[in-house]
Amino acid sequence: MKNTFQAPKGTRDFMPEAMAVRRYIEETWRRVSVRHGFLEVDGPTFESLELYKVKSGDEIVSQLFSFRDRGDRELALRPEFTPTLARMVAAQAQGLPRPIKWFSIPRCYRAEQPQKGRLREFIQWNVDFLADPTPRCEQECLMLCIETLREFGLQAGDFRIGWNNRDWLTQALTSTFVAPERVGDAYFILDRLAKLDAAGRRELYAQRQCPPREQSQFDLFAAAISSEPAAPDALMQIMSTWPQEVRDGIKAFESRIADIGLGEYCRFDLSVVRGLAYYTGFVFEVLDAKSHNRAMAGGGRYDRLIETFGGPSMPAIGFGMGDVVLEIVLRERGVLPRQLLSAPDVFVLSALPDEQPVQQILMALRRSTWDSASQRVAQAGLHAVASYKATRNIGKLLPEAVASGARVAVILAPEELARGVAKIKNLITRTEREAPLEAAALAAQVRAELQSG
Amino acid sequence: MKNTFQAPKGTRDFMPEAMAVRRYIEETWRRVSVRHGFLEVDGPTFESLELYKVKSGDEIVSQLFSFRDRGDRELALRPEFTPTLARMVAAQAQGLPRPIKWFSIPRCYRAEQPQKGRLREFIQWNVDFLADPTPRCEQECLMLCIETLREFGLQAGDFRIGWNNRDWLTQALTSTFVAPERVGDAYFILDRLAKLDAAGRRELYAQRQCPPREQSQFDLFAAAISSEPAAPDALMQIMSTWPQEVRDGIKAFESRIADIGLGEYCRFDLSVVRGLAYYTGFVFEVLDAKSHNRAMAGGGRYDRLIETFGGPSMPAIGFGMGDVVLEIVLRERGVLPRQLLSAPDVFVLSALPDEQPVQQILMALRRSTWDSASQRVAQAGLHAVASYKATRNIGKLLPEAVASGARVAVILAPEELARGVAKIKNLITRTEREAPLEAAALAAQVRAELQSG
Repeated sequence: MKNTFQAPKGTRDFMPEAMAVRRYIEETWRRVSVRHGFLEVDGPTFESLELYKVKSGDEIVSQLFSFRDRGDRELALRPEFTPTLARMVAAQAQGLPRPIKWFSIPRCYRAEQPQKGRLREFIQWNVDFLADPTPRCEQECLMLCIETLREFGLQAGDFRIGWNNRDWLTQALTSTFVAPERVGDAYFILDRLAKLDAAGRRELYAQRQCPPREQSQFDLFAAAISSEPAAPDALMQIMSTWPQEVRDGIKAFESRIADIGLGEYCRFDLSVVRGLAYYTGFVFEVLDAKSHNRAMAGGGRYDRLIETFGGPSMPAIGFGMGDVVLEIVLRERGVLPRQLLSAPDVFVLSALPDEQPVQQILMALRRSTWDSASQRVAQAGLHAVASYKATRNIGKLLPEAVASGARVAVILAPEELARGVAKIKNLITRTEREAPLEAAALAAQVRAELQSG
Repeated sequence: MKNTFQAPKGTRDFMPEAMAVRRYIEETWRRVSVRHGFLEVDGPTFESLELYKVKSGDEIVSQLFSFRDRGDRELALRPEFTPTLARMVAAQAQGLPRPIKWFSIPRCYRAEQPQKGRLREFIQWNVDFLADPTPRCEQECLMLCIETLREFGLQAGDFRIGWNNRDWLTQALTSTFVAPERVGDAYFILDRLAKLDAAGRRELYAQRQCPPREQSQFDLFAAAISSEPAAPDALMQIMSTWPQEVRDGIKAFESRIADIGLGEYCRFDLSVVRGLAYYTGFVFEVLDAKSHNRAMAGGGRYDRLIETFGGPSMPAIGFGMGDVVLEIVLRERGVLPRQLLSAPDVFVLSALPDEQPVQQILMALRRSTWDSASQRVAQAGLHAVASYKATRNIGKLLPEAVASGARVAVILAPEELARGVAKIKNLITRTEREAPLEAAALAAQVRAELQSG
């Protein structure tokens, strides 16, 4: 029976090099999150289907992979982490120290048609800052998001953060040209404006039955959004009609951001409204500055969500960043490190006919010592590999050891074996010396050689 | 609308402490695997349902969570990693450097009734060594498995590895008391023998229609397996009837294992036959020595599997270890480290009415510097946190800083602010000094204090 299978559509096989890139991305997310005082959490890969309907309505169902367990419960693979987070916080709210600063790095799933940058299975970094009534939660989220992109080697010119505030925007729209009952339509239009040309806008206006006054105003918004050099003028013209309170709020926020050194990355952006209805107030998106409107991350406030899941009322802000677009951007900018697979410390080469001495030495090199008092590893074992080539010619094996990146080689050969010794070769300085063949003593000598520089 | 939801049956929420335990387990698996020269891989969380049928037959379907995508393809959440591995190796076999030493740490799923040590969603470390025709692949797998358990703080008395060889066992059984057509029944019986008393065995013999001669022999096997002090005698009595070739094979294997210092952990074990039909030759299980027959890990040779998935014929050996039983054992032995959440480097305390200076200093402390030439982080940012308490009384805030485990505190107070300085307090030596308030300069002084010991 012969079979050939492929990975399911929209999923990925992670061969060693691809896996090293994935771990680099995940570990960078994790390291920078921890540095900013966030704690890692996770939940199940699937939740009850109902959980997703509570947050996103019934229409979410068609975008999910759903199934039933043997108890006929409807379950779905998580399309995002927020409903799980809201469930966990709602259940534990009384016992949790506040504020709650959590991050997670879940794999998520959507049943859509795959396309560039959007797969059916992806990894999404989630950051959430809950139960803090001060503006620092917004600042710390922006700080973490920006510092993480900097940690990947991206700079101010590589990305920009467009931010907005739905409360202020609603106030500005209703006090200028949008009737209160048309606010939902206005958001629908603003969410799409940046991606449309004049003809596309006409179609959208017709679809949403825009009165002529709205149309001319939205055309002005489109100019402010899309035409970079003209943008400040068009934006100023728009904002000059807004209530003083809203303009002051925007200025105060900008100054707070500038204060902590993040001003060059962030810009008030009319087009960032975030489609999802659960956002309240502040929202933002990270946009790839070199590929117009490609969103790398996004988030905002969701002050009412924890209540919806049966928890107490609490302020909340969060954002998510997926691995797929991020990896594309890092590759395009050439900042993905070339060598991500870790090099061995030591490479064992043998001219002996018997494999066992090699295995004994590998064992001694790789072994850690455990300290029972502290319940910790006292001395970590070394990353040690051997050649698996059939040849016993050291001259032919040596290039493999050098190419591996190992700093030290252990060489076993019959003449030294007869004298009870092995050779230790420093592959950087190219110096050689002899050491006792006995595995533990040899391992100690290898450690000394590694520490010598 | 109020809702309360729970995690689906048999799944886990990972709150920060639980997540730290999970990451400790995963990172230990990863670190020791890398040290032994294995490369990490992964595949999709779901595969085509057919893939699992190829390896395990149609009966596997009832144990899987399966669903259909919008193209009506039948998919299933992975119950294990081996079919994905076999698919990946089969597809890439020609281009892969050999031998193939891979590990993975996937989340896996089974639709069974949850019970202690068996959940519906779990994490399983998988190690595979393929395309190596020598005995070292068996040795290196045992080495990695044992070294990993030692890295967790387990010792020789905490676990034992029972090993067997299905080829040798079949030869021994058929040359002594099992008719060739009854080999399958014999394996079925041996797989269960260790868990049954005399009455249970009678029932099993009846069910499998054992002739009387088989019954008395299996009773002898049961004595050899279960009764520890009598075991060597009973085992020797059984083995004395086996072909010389099989006995020599067992002895040679034992001596090779002893040779590399693993003899004390491993024992030939009649009861370890591994239920799964795809195993060929060498098989082993890691058993919790203090809770009889609780399996912590298991594996063996599967020399024909890659062919089954359309690849070339290649020798292969692998094993898996789940996180659920491992964590139970580590807790029972008291070797799980008490403090797994990482302590901050520096804690910022402020008596100032304004939050912004704290944010500026946090920013400067947490920021990395990037080196464009090497495309790497040149200096990593610090793990820096601040108190979120409302009080501005440094005396009341200091205990939180000390409890956090931070080695250094930065203290901001109005009198120092007026002089353009802040206090740096070493929380270990309890010494204090002043440093310039400007964020970058202050961060440099904090680094110096941290490096001073």
